[in-house]
Amino acid sequence: MERLTVVKIGGSLLESADRLERFLDAFAALEGKKLLVHGGGAQAGRIGRAMGVEPQMWNGRRITDAAALDVVTMVYAGLNSKRIVALLQKRGCNAVGMSGPDGNAVRGTVRPVGEVDFGFVGDITPEGIGLPVLSLLLENGYVPTLNAITHDGDGRLLNTNADTIAATVAAALAVLYNVRLLLVHDRPGVLGDVNDDGSVIDALGPVAIAKMKEEGAIAAGMLPKIDNALAALRAGVGSARIGDERILERGDCGTQIVGGE
Amino acid sequence: MERLTVVKIGGSLLESADRLERFLDAFAALEGKKLLVHGGGAQAGRIGRAMGVEPQMWNGRRITDAAALDVVTMVYAGLNSKRIVALLQKRGCNAVGMSGPDGNAVRGTVRPVGEVDFGFVGDITPEGIGLPVLSLLLENGYVPTLNAITHDGDGRLLNTNADTIAATVAAALAVLYNVRLLLVHDRPGVLGDVNDDGSVIDALGPVAIAKMKEEGAIAAGMLPKIDNALAALRAGVGSARIGDERILERGDCGTQIVGGE
Repeated sequence: MERLTVVKIGGSLLESADRLERFLDAFAALEGKKLLVHGGGAQAGRIGRAMGVEPQMWNGRRITDAAALDVVTMVYAGLNSKRIVALLQKRGCNAVGMSGPDGNAVRGTVRPVGEVDFGFVGDITPEGIGLPVLSLLLENGYVPTLNAITHDGDGRLLNTNADTIAATVAAALAVLYNVRLLLVHDRPGVLGDVNDDGSVIDALGPVAIAKMKEEGAIAAGMLPKIDNALAALRAGVGSARIGDERILERGDCGTQIVGGE
Repeated sequence: MERLTVVKIGGSLLESADRLERFLDAFAALEGKKLLVHGGGAQAGRIGRAMGVEPQMWNGRRITDAAALDVVTMVYAGLNSKRIVALLQKRGCNAVGMSGPDGNAVRGTVRPVGEVDFGFVGDITPEGIGLPVLSLLLENGYVPTLNAITHDGDGRLLNTNADTIAATVAAALAVLYNVRLLLVHDRPGVLGDVNDDGSVIDALGPVAIAKMKEEGAIAAGMLPKIDNALAALRAGVGSARIGDERILERGDCGTQIVGGE
């Protein structure tokens, strides 16, 4: 099968114009078929506050009421998506910015209310990924560029964690391509010591991850990334790596997440 | 050539949930290939004011500084685009919300500073329309749903009048399809008496239009619609009609703009 690289970038990268431009240089230079997923949390918080909407979080995950949904839809699907796509077009990379409803690319269901009511938050599975629209674009030289806004197929927009979208899209596309998943954020990888950027762990499998979780040795924001990477590998994704933007150019930095037992 | 219907809806339709739903029912029911273009001026003004950004207008056209560009990008490409697309998906209409940079769908140039500096406003011609991405989507059953955000190919986003986008996209696609252009707004057509909705003019050609302009008998907001419709007809579009949402269902209401001399 042909290789497809699925890259996810976090919102913090979008906060620095220089870092974003460097990341986009590296992304545009990636050979072969590719797909980008981006978040944009920090901007949404700032713009929401300017409009009188305070962000609510629980364990690193956003709680999305109606006002917050409007804000993230404006920021993720509007400002961030179009800025990124325009900068990719400048680099000759034929990106198409997409939210979940666009071509039915990512369809989810409202998360059931449990311990916490997350509001308009969408849970997704590989079955909800729109392979027809994504493969049509990929096979014709376009670069789907997804943001965190999804939909329920019944007219409602939802907010889904961007790491989860990247991992689930990677899993769904694994039936068509040999997928590698790169989760890019602002730290050089999974750290043995969260205060030491030099303590990057080269590779992590399920047993070591379970042990680190037990010991509380993984930063809260990192947990969903690791769980998503493991889920993607179990679903047939060829490889998964977590780190900063250097993992686009070098296979020997960041943390490789390893599947199996 | 196969028929393609290009429909433009104004921002005021987006202000009423009921009217928007009725419009989208009619749009989803349209047979054959179709493409939607939407504005969203009123929402942009309201949300901009909530963020401390006052809209600036000149002769019914928006002046777009950097802060205003961010607002319209959030509202047109984010909130309005994704709401409309989600509601079309609910109706089984496979819409894809797109701004100019997406797949290089609409590329323009910053309007030169003349009597007025319009700021980040993009002028477009049929040559700047991305036929590859639009025809790929149309030929595969998707419904491109364009908003007023365009780009210059050099990383900058621009704001373009949505009537102009509709007319220019219609003109560009006339090389591939037999295009009819429907410009939908909140009045039943071009009115002989701007205070009387019963005074709809059935058909208008260039001579009558020039005469009405001379007499100041056309409302300011209607002028760009009429000029755009005439330009589209001159560029090969098969037919052009201006009116409220009933023109989607009936060929005998609204005002038909007629080309030629």
